[in-house]
Amino acid sequence: MDPDWIAIDWGTSNLRVWAIAASGAILARAGSDEGMARLSPDGFEPALLRLIGGWLGTRPLPALACGMVGARQGWTEAAYRAIPCAPLDPAALTRAPTRDPRLDLRIAPGLSQDRPADVMRGEETQIAGALMLEPGFDGVVCLPGTHSKWAHVSAGEVVSFQTHMTGELFELVSRQSVLRHSLGADDAPHREEAFLAAVSDAISRPERIGSRLFGIRAEGLLHGLAPATARARLSGLLIGMELAAARPYWLGQPVALIGSSGLARAYATALAAQGAQTRSLDATACTLAGLTSLLATGTRP
Amino acid sequence: MDPDWIAIDWGTSNLRVWAIAASGAILARAGSDEGMARLSPDGFEPALLRLIGGWLGTRPLPALACGMVGARQGWTEAAYRAIPCAPLDPAALTRAPTRDPRLDLRIAPGLSQDRPADVMRGEETQIAGALMLEPGFDGVVCLPGTHSKWAHVSAGEVVSFQTHMTGELFELVSRQSVLRHSLGADDAPHREEAFLAAVSDAISRPERIGSRLFGIRAEGLLHGLAPATARARLSGLLIGMELAAARPYWLGQPVALIGSSGLARAYATALAAQGAQTRSLDATACTLAGLTSLLATGTRP
Repeated sequence: MDPDWIAIDWGTSNLRVWAIAASGAILARAGSDEGMARLSPDGFEPALLRLIGGWLGTRPLPALACGMVGARQGWTEAAYRAIPCAPLDPAALTRAPTRDPRLDLRIAPGLSQDRPADVMRGEETQIAGALMLEPGFDGVVCLPGTHSKWAHVSAGEVVSFQTHMTGELFELVSRQSVLRHSLGADDAPHREEAFLAAVSDAISRPERIGSRLFGIRAEGLLHGLAPATARARLSGLLIGMELAAARPYWLGQPVALIGSSGLARAYATALAAQGAQTRSLDATACTLAGLTSLLATGTRP
Repeated sequence: MDPDWIAIDWGTSNLRVWAIAASGAILARAGSDEGMARLSPDGFEPALLRLIGGWLGTRPLPALACGMVGARQGWTEAAYRAIPCAPLDPAALTRAPTRDPRLDLRIAPGLSQDRPADVMRGEETQIAGALMLEPGFDGVVCLPGTHSKWAHVSAGEVVSFQTHMTGELFELVSRQSVLRHSLGADDAPHREEAFLAAVSDAISRPERIGSRLFGIRAEGLLHGLAPATARARLSGLLIGMELAAARPYWLGQPVALIGSSGLARAYATALAAQGAQTRSLDATACTLAGLTSLLATGTRP
């Protein structure tokens, strides 16, 4: 195996790597749970070598990384680039210090917005990838997740963006609050009706989220609310609150939804019920297209 | 020491007991962290005897308890009473099974509301106490806490109530979300200006809570938001969302706020800024007055 370069997606919880041929073909892939949150600064290079050590030859191999690996607590800090700007800039990569001379690693910086204050790391690469996969796309990119992002993209630049703690709130409430006794398992069949009713409820009365959450518990105690329905309702309430706040993003705009998981499908369903049409893009394909776009210029040793 | 009866406030996290004389004087008090959540059904009697064993004589001593001790997972279930009804009814106590013949323990049931589904356990006793301390009170009782309650009281009955997960959300987000890095210590001086601005922001745009939460993190990273200000803002956002949903309760109504903690003061400040005047009642005084009201009839062995 003779890869041309290595693509790295290094987030808070996970590390994923791909060996890419000069043709663009994926020669190999690997992953681990050694995300940024589990590593000290000295731990990044060994964690990476555990996955790609066997792919290295004798000459320095270019590697491009995105995500929290470039945070202040990461391998080395890649300072945010301020919007408005293109999501990625091949001239604005940060070289990571390495002990192994066969590694030539550069990290893509995230984006920052001054007012309202906001930041992203990793999603900028997926947005750049979406622009590679859909050249000329003008509109809104939505990236559901722990910290969901909505970005307005125009003429190849990110013009504004907004982050919501929706996914993190879902995890905290479903696993650690009093509701943990009331919810079904992760893989319960999706209850679309309960989900959409909760989305609509949250959009029309977002201030009631805090009481609706306790209401899920009370309805379980008093009326035997089914755990799978309870989970769908929790998801719908939190996603509905997000859609209410993100309305200026999705209303009357083409929306590209990055992600192929059940979560992205839930967003597509909720947006469709609000009259917004979305197109879906595969998250990994966007990440790899974004990193590939960086390779074009200036990244060879 | 020859107590006439024992008052017990037994919640999810804590157990508090008082030895009361026939005159109503408090002869002794004690407490532990053996709350309902830490005990199996067999563990309640020993946990109670560890605190009050020394207060017992030879004859059975009446004891009255309120709170989660009466939940399905408690000592013995005291079935909810459905509103509208008086907050407490001396004829509706549930006797707890005991091994020690010197214990004659009865548990006050909580209240339930059919639609929207809601429940309370423990607060009903404080509401009854508030009615003892302010005879003829007609209006709204607010009990801030892990699960804040708002109850509309008229002609001595609870007519409707509403629960908000405000306190639990604050604990989860401040201790376990990405914001835990951005917030000051518990005892940071209260930042009233930031708190009130956040209350007002949440009341006018409650749907933005999920993005405002992440904004606290981003403003810390980009603009050095002070940790004490960040904590005040988080508190204000969550309390503001609660006030927005509870507006039909506090608007134009006399509001009795039960609690003397910093949290109750924060609610009083936030409500005053919205033009609502509150009177404050001490939480422990309300609990004891409520339990005392039960003693009047039918509870002697």
